[in-house]
Amino acid sequence: MSDPAAVLTLERNQALRERILACALARVSAGGFAALTMQALAEDVGIATGSLYRHFRSKGELAVEVFAAASQRELDALAAVLAGPGRPSARLAAGLRQFAGRAWNSRRLAFALIAEPVDPQVDEQRLLYREAYAELFVGLLEEGMATGEFRLTDAGLVAACLVGAIAESLVGPLSPPARAAREAGRLTQDLGDVSQSLVTFCLRAVGAEEPQP
Amino acid sequence: MSDPAAVLTLERNQALRERILACALARVSAGGFAALTMQALAEDVGIATGSLYRHFRSKGELAVEVFAAASQRELDALAAVLAGPGRPSARLAAGLRQFAGRAWNSRRLAFALIAEPVDPQVDEQRLLYREAYAELFVGLLEEGMATGEFRLTDAGLVAACLVGAIAESLVGPLSPPARAAREAGRLTQDLGDVSQSLVTFCLRAVGAEEPQP
Repeated sequence: MSDPAAVLTLERNQALRERILACALARVSAGGFAALTMQALAEDVGIATGSLYRHFRSKGELAVEVFAAASQRELDALAAVLAGPGRPSARLAAGLRQFAGRAWNSRRLAFALIAEPVDPQVDEQRLLYREAYAELFVGLLEEGMATGEFRLTDAGLVAACLVGAIAESLVGPLSPPARAAREAGRLTQDLGDVSQSLVTFCLRAVGAEEPQP
Repeated sequence: MSDPAAVLTLERNQALRERILACALARVSAGGFAALTMQALAEDVGIATGSLYRHFRSKGELAVEVFAAASQRELDALAAVLAGPGRPSARLAAGLRQFAGRAWNSRRLAFALIAEPVDPQVDEQRLLYREAYAELFVGLLEEGMATGEFRLTDAGLVAACLVGAIAESLVGPLSPPARAAREAGRLTQDLGDVSQSLVTFCLRAVGAEEPQP
């Protein structure tokens, strides 16, 4: 690898790979995984479809990478809040608000990550990320159990319930029909309503004191 | 259609179609959707693979029918309990216990319905059935809001949270790794624990009085 030309080729390949992933993420953010076709993506990047396949063997492989990168970003953002200062219940509420807010501000992408029907390969990733989210919550729940703030016995099961509740509560409001209804003025539910209902639901569910409105 | 031979053929076709679906459900119950291959199914039914394709154009179409039939059965069973006698909170608890119990007693099938990575066509059905479950809960929640038993404002969003919490709480305990661990004696969590944690989580979340243990 001391051959300068080989190093340059490697760097160029790496840079192109990253540009492909960025374009793929942009496509999914705009139109979901349904909009991620190899041909359209190659056009966005400005390369031949054949070249695209040299970097990603299949659309499934590419979709998995886009899914993982976008999901990891959300997971890290939530982890930062849950590990922050303050009482466990306050951190739980702040984490939920941030998660809902981020989803709301990238609705098409959030729906794609949470619920869009996709390849089984991406579904596999969904299960893994849901476990990763549950692990984050287990840590917080155990802290809150230790301080007596949360009254529960099975942190693992309750963490799974939280992950499910959060994801499912957002599916409807983020879904394409709901977006269309909101844009047409037929749906008045906004981020504040969704976020508040979700926080109340989760804090009650873990046996925390109800937050002051 | 007054031709007796034509009527007989139609009846035979219908009977064969139902037998195919029953065999397909048996395969999914034993090994999930991954075990549903057209060739293995044709062998189970005792027909040629080509004949199978005369009844179901694709594996996806067949999987969707199996999914819908099995899901509808669960939905109906839950609806019967939620519409039964008693206070809304008691019916919610009874519905949750029954749902968890039925899933526990058909773990492989329940996991396949709730979480197994599958064709996008089946995923579409999942979204539809999750909406149907949410609608059931909306009815119950509104009853409980009217009697003052449930303290909440957005029945639609809370119903979605319940659907998500129920599904996700069962994914882990029903998953193939958890089953293997239980069978090897490394996991002691049983149906009673899971069911009780889920009931407590959901009753608290809707602002109901906590049930007496």
